[in-house]
Amino acid sequence: MANSPSGDSMTDRLVRVLETFTPTRTMQTAAEIGRRAGLPPSTAHRVVGDLVAAGLLDRDDEGRVRVGVRLWELATRSSLPLRVRQAALPAMERVQARVREHTQLAILEQDEALFLERLSHPQAGANITRIAGRLPLHASSSGLALLAFAAPEVQERVLARPLSRLTPATPADAAAVRRKLAEVRRLGHAIAPGFIEEVSTGVAVPVRDRGGRALAALSVVLPREAAPGPALEELHRAAREVERALSEPS
Amino acid sequence: MANSPSGDSMTDRLVRVLETFTPTRTMQTAAEIGRRAGLPPSTAHRVVGDLVAAGLLDRDDEGRVRVGVRLWELATRSSLPLRVRQAALPAMERVQARVREHTQLAILEQDEALFLERLSHPQAGANITRIAGRLPLHASSSGLALLAFAAPEVQERVLARPLSRLTPATPADAAAVRRKLAEVRRLGHAIAPGFIEEVSTGVAVPVRDRGGRALAALSVVLPREAAPGPALEELHRAAREVERALSEPS
Repeated sequence: MANSPSGDSMTDRLVRVLETFTPTRTMQTAAEIGRRAGLPPSTAHRVVGDLVAAGLLDRDDEGRVRVGVRLWELATRSSLPLRVRQAALPAMERVQARVREHTQLAILEQDEALFLERLSHPQAGANITRIAGRLPLHASSSGLALLAFAAPEVQERVLARPLSRLTPATPADAAAVRRKLAEVRRLGHAIAPGFIEEVSTGVAVPVRDRGGRALAALSVVLPREAAPGPALEELHRAAREVERALSEPS
Repeated sequence: MANSPSGDSMTDRLVRVLETFTPTRTMQTAAEIGRRAGLPPSTAHRVVGDLVAAGLLDRDDEGRVRVGVRLWELATRSSLPLRVRQAALPAMERVQARVREHTQLAILEQDEALFLERLSHPQAGANITRIAGRLPLHASSSGLALLAFAAPEVQERVLARPLSRLTPATPADAAAVRRKLAEVRRLGHAIAPGFIEEVSTGVAVPVRDRGGRALAALSVVLPREAAPGPALEELHRAAREVERALSEPS
């Protein structure tokens, strides 16, 4: 699209505006958006006005805006996340009914685990994951299941970067993560005791294509003291179901 | 945003590009998008290239593009549909577990019923509804539940337009729809036998705010011969739960 005098395209500006919205910051004024997106106030007002006119942002009575329902609709109705989620949901519901803990679906996106779905049992424990939220690949059970069965160049790129330590238990140097990935490939699943939050253990099983690459990961968040076996058994069965569903023509 | 020589803004072009994608047309070439969006080929290629560079569209090995995972993420993580759906999902799962038929969540958007969620029991019957899909307000049980408790100006606007007849049973003149809306207000729920598909009956209950306006509708699609009572009982209970969940601070 046309470039502004500062050289960024209109598409870049749109992305920068959308990126100022988060799960905990859903309503903003145009001035706040401009400040957070690094846009001059007059530009921010014009871009926000255009997005409201197109229905991509919705404005409330006090002049604040939020991400528009129309944008959600356009982004959802033909998206890959919807297809993967639809294929996985029946199996996820069975896992959740039996294990009675948070049951999640993630894909690898831009070198992070992006969560497409989370079913939360009312009595389940703490859980940091959000739908459309992300976690580091090396620290989450979903991320480890995705990374262990990813292309070698993705693994090398992720391991070459600084690895954050979220808790004392997080494997945060390349050698420790390599050992963990080898274990995940050997077992066919990932167990991450206290890697994200000290009180929880994440367990995850990859959903794989015919070539063996991970398409997605199914996971459950257990209390740290719980035995992971029963949840893993359910996840392995669910992953096979989702692989069958995804291999059918859509 | 800046206007093109033809007078449409960059935001309009973005919306026109996104609108060419549908649940059954998820992959397209830039040339196909240009033709369907009414954009000159060179413009279509430039806009699609910018959107791919920004991650809002994803390109495959054969040069076709689809709606990007990044766009889904940006549109979902702080959106109203996510909040409404998260509030409704536990109640919807209970309805589905008991009734064992398609269980759906819709909101009123641009004078149509927009479906935010659909839980489908494996043994459930035919169902035309799609997530992020739409149905006419006067013809669907969800739409009638939303319209009966909408602002009077919305009702008048919808009734003033031509009303489509999807089956012989669809109420398709303003007087018939008015009678139906009065019935929905009297009963507190909508029953739509064969209005959308002759083989099914939709039943829906509004989720209302303190002022009595419909925020959303919960619905179940039953075989035409089934008695609607048990599903409606579950839906009324679920709607009260969702009203409580939505009235809590998010």
